[in-house]
Amino acid sequence: MAGNPGRRAALVDAGVEVLAREGARGLTFRAVDTAAGVPTGTASNYFTGRDDLLRQIDARLHARLAPDPEVLAELMAAPKDRALVTALMQDLMGRVTHDRTGYLALLEMRLEATRRPELRASFTESVRAELEYGMEFHQRAGLPGGDETVTVLYLAMLGLILEHLTLPGVLDGVLPGTGVPEGLVETLVTTIVPER
Amino acid sequence: MAGNPGRRAALVDAGVEVLAREGARGLTFRAVDTAAGVPTGTASNYFTGRDDLLRQIDARLHARLAPDPEVLAELMAAPKDRALVTALMQDLMGRVTHDRTGYLALLEMRLEATRRPELRASFTESVRAELEYGMEFHQRAGLPGGDETVTVLYLAMLGLILEHLTLPGVLDGVLPGTGVPEGLVETLVTTIVPER
Repeated sequence: MAGNPGRRAALVDAGVEVLAREGARGLTFRAVDTAAGVPTGTASNYFTGRDDLLRQIDARLHARLAPDPEVLAELMAAPKDRALVTALMQDLMGRVTHDRTGYLALLEMRLEATRRPELRASFTESVRAELEYGMEFHQRAGLPGGDETVTVLYLAMLGLILEHLTLPGVLDGVLPGTGVPEGLVETLVTTIVPER
Repeated sequence: MAGNPGRRAALVDAGVEVLAREGARGLTFRAVDTAAGVPTGTASNYFTGRDDLLRQIDARLHARLAPDPEVLAELMAAPKDRALVTALMQDLMGRVTHDRTGYLALLEMRLEATRRPELRASFTESVRAELEYGMEFHQRAGLPGGDETVTVLYLAMLGLILEHLTLPGVLDGVLPGTGVPEGLVETLVTTIVPER
């Protein structure tokens, strides 16, 4: 295994790009080499196989799509009410819009997980850990609602992200006067999260 | 264009199977011919191209995944309350579980729509029509809640379907005593739909 960490990171990011652009079936070492602009054969020195590459893409996306700690700290200075939950979900949608490629790659990974038990096991673990962290964060912060609230909000945001990234026109103007996605995020939170 | 309707239907269903199993990139006329067990070259006599095949798959899935009219009529005989909304969503999840391949193919089509503007336009139209029909149905039946309720419930169910089909372990036991997906469907409806 080659050890240049900068090159490894560039190859993983190229893998994210290939996944989003070509779909999981297009994710070959050769395509990653081409997307990263390195000589053919390079990726095979950095990953033991496709499962290893997918696992490293998952880990990379986890870090790449996480909230900015400074933005989060600033948001969390506000009163712990429903408006704060809305602001946190708007921040999430902002990250989706900003790194569309990263989120599309996550959706491709989900579909690839239906075909690869090893990927399914590791990916399940990381998504589950994120959901459990969300529950813990919500409770510790004293935000309104319990674990059920967080789970329902998580599923509704997952649906909104899928719809907005793949068929944005479906939601456009469906609720008059409600912008997509900002206005819809507010509607989701108001519907799902209790006032206190 | 060849005109045998039975063969055309078999080819479209084979296309659904290829989409779910191989992903959008694996959907070639040759793969459809193989999955349908017909001589190579057959599909090219039935579809003008890949966009035509995808459009026909969309139309086919619309019919294939629709509720059974008799089951629906029986359900709609009950009082128009939140319990009926839960029963309707349980019926939807039952169809997801029963035709996993069809719903996985729809998810593949969504991702393929990000790459093909023509598919995005036609697919947006059919999904939007379904959402608007859901709003109309809900209102006409006198079920509790308005268009916002239907939209939020639609997005939460979309998220639940995506999670349950791709990474079912994420939700397993996350809310103690709540079965997946049945118990979770009830939690979604109770959280999102007003009591009356």
